Amino acid sequence: MTIKYDNVYINETSTIVGPYEFNGPFSKLYDKHYKEFYFGEKTFEQAESKLLQESVELLLEKSKLKKEDISLHISGDLLNQLVASNYAASNIGIPFLGIYNACASSVEGLIIASNMIDKNQIDNAIVSVSSHNNSAEKQFRYPVEYGAPKKNYTTFTTTGGASALLSKNKSEIKIESSTIGKVIDMGIKDVFNMGGVMSPAAAYTIYTHLKETGRDASYYDLILTGDLGKHGKEILKEYMKEEYNMELTNYDDSACMIFDLKKQPVLSGGSGPACLPLVAYTYIMNKMKNKELKRVLLVATGALMSPTIVYQQKSIPAIAHAISLEVI
Amino acid sequence: MTIKYDNVYINETSTIVGPYEFNGPFSKLYDKHYKEFYFGEKTFEQAESKLLQESVELLLEKSKLKKEDISLHISGDLLNQLVASNYAASNIGIPFLGIYNACASSVEGLIIASNMIDKNQIDNAIVSVSSHNNSAEKQFRYPVEYGAPKKNYTTFTTTGGASALLSKNKSEIKIESSTIGKVIDMGIKDVFNMGGVMSPAAAYTIYTHLKETGRDASYYDLILTGDLGKHGKEILKEYMKEEYNMELTNYDDSACMIFDLKKQPVLSGGSGPACLPLVAYTYIMNKMKNKELKRVLLVATGALMSPTIVYQQKSIPAIAHAISLEVI
Repeated sequence: MTIKYDNVYINETSTIVGPYEFNGPFSKLYDKHYKEFYFGEKTFEQAESKLLQESVELLLEKSKLKKEDISLHISGDLLNQLVASNYAASNIGIPFLGIYNACASSVEGLIIASNMIDKNQIDNAIVSVSSHNNSAEKQFRYPVEYGAPKKNYTTFTTTGGASALLSKNKSEIKIESSTIGKVIDMGIKDVFNMGGVMSPAAAYTIYTHLKETGRDASYYDLILTGDLGKHGKEILKEYMKEEYNMELTNYDDSACMIFDLKKQPVLSGGSGPACLPLVAYTYIMNKMKNKELKRVLLVATGALMSPTIVYQQKSIPAIAHAISLEVI
Repeated sequence: MTIKYDNVYINETSTIVGPYEFNGPFSKLYDKHYKEFYFGEKTFEQAESKLLQESVELLLEKSKLKKEDISLHISGDLLNQLVASNYAASNIGIPFLGIYNACASSVEGLIIASNMIDKNQIDNAIVSVSSHNNSAEKQFRYPVEYGAPKKNYTTFTTTGGASALLSKNKSEIKIESSTIGKVIDMGIKDVFNMGGVMSPAAAYTIYTHLKETGRDASYYDLILTGDLGKHGKEILKEYMKEEYNMELTNYDDSACMIFDLKKQPVLSGGSGPACLPLVAYTYIMNKMKNKELKRVLLVATGALMSPTIVYQQKSIPAIAHAISLEVI
């Protein structure tokens, strides 16, 4: 389901990261980093909420705006009942919509905001997401202190807060269109194989976007998926060929970019709602501002299970949403 | 933050309930009911997802539409990672957005859909929510089998799936405007006192809606909050007077209507994302179709904590969103 926009721009972004991301290749591009995982808070959940809140506050500061100037705040994260977003939103105090499509929440938020801005329902919006390695591991797998071994195709949840300010005020980066994806379940039950779970959903959304816009994959200088990881990235390319007879040129996956996969202990790469925007709002947008990339399709991917439902032996559904960015 | 609509209508609704709701005053108004809590599924979580899925399928049937005719499905529920919605959406197969503002999710979904329909971004949308007494008790409090005693101001989570079809095709009930609320935290830490937690958020949204539309409370034949309960309803009325110097006439709360509070063992009344739509889509809309009520403001209220964050002694934030319905 594709929507075109005439008047939506990304005016500013902010990124705050944890130690692993800071030790990765985009180290110098983030606005702020923390050297450990608590950030002065008592728990990982509260630390994650602080990260998200600080990324919004930093965005306001960079934009020279006050919270009263912002029409709407949209936010999502992985924690049960979205508590990272909720407690941050409570401290920030802007009219708020909570969203959840797991690691596809970043683009889901950008789509809902773009819909409203393009049609003058609001002046502007802040879209934020967060993820935190230790809070996610504790909630979805095991507390990291247990030292449980992992399969090599497991991804490593990024620790980060990322926010974007959208409005109809012209900037270099225009949001040109968006595609809302469908939930797809291929019957996979392995909770470590997120790349395998999410690739068919990503493929469906990319295919649908290209079909509904009448474009070839080569229209984009870059198609960037969210967090399929090293293994999922290969699955996606193969699946696009087999299922849709489509060769993906100019394709990459942020999970494979945010860390140095050869040197850092992150197995198949990054993941989490923050993974895609941490790469898109820094490295990718810098390349767009330098005109090295002019058209980029961001495809955020989310796996939609809960630990409870995994214990009940159900297979894992996934979704992907896409947003097309253009340099003007 | 208030938005007005020119061309959005509720074309059809569907409601499916559990045994307590069926034993309540609106017994005959629901489309379908179950006599126990499993509905042929093995777990409460899967039962809840089935309820939600069936309510969407029933809505399609009542509307004489196929899933291919629907542009967008928006859904939310209380389960961790929205699994009731996700697994239902996976089986249904319509482009999907997951949302979470706890028990305010019903109106959050109606707002996002109305925004897009009014501006021709989509033809139509299905908005669904669910809640399930036993899955919610298990996740947020204790499994009901434990028989833990409760304070008298506790609300009783409704078991229900409720869906609405929205489009620009004229029907008797128009969505006239909406107001997106802010997260408000009054410092309450008592997880049983949901009415106390949510009343100030409801009051803020009602006040903001009336201020931004230039209306008196008496403009509405009914202002209906979601699930404040018997105790929360009184708190809201008092709070409106104290904080905003505003007397609420024509006011009620669906938590106090969905059950027979004198006869049924539900303490302060109903709750859960399904509570408000189960009342609104049956009893209230019947009264609207009979012209007994012409203008109704639905104010869904949500408490935004998780059990994890409650164990960490944090106070509980809340939100409320409003949507104005008019008979045409």
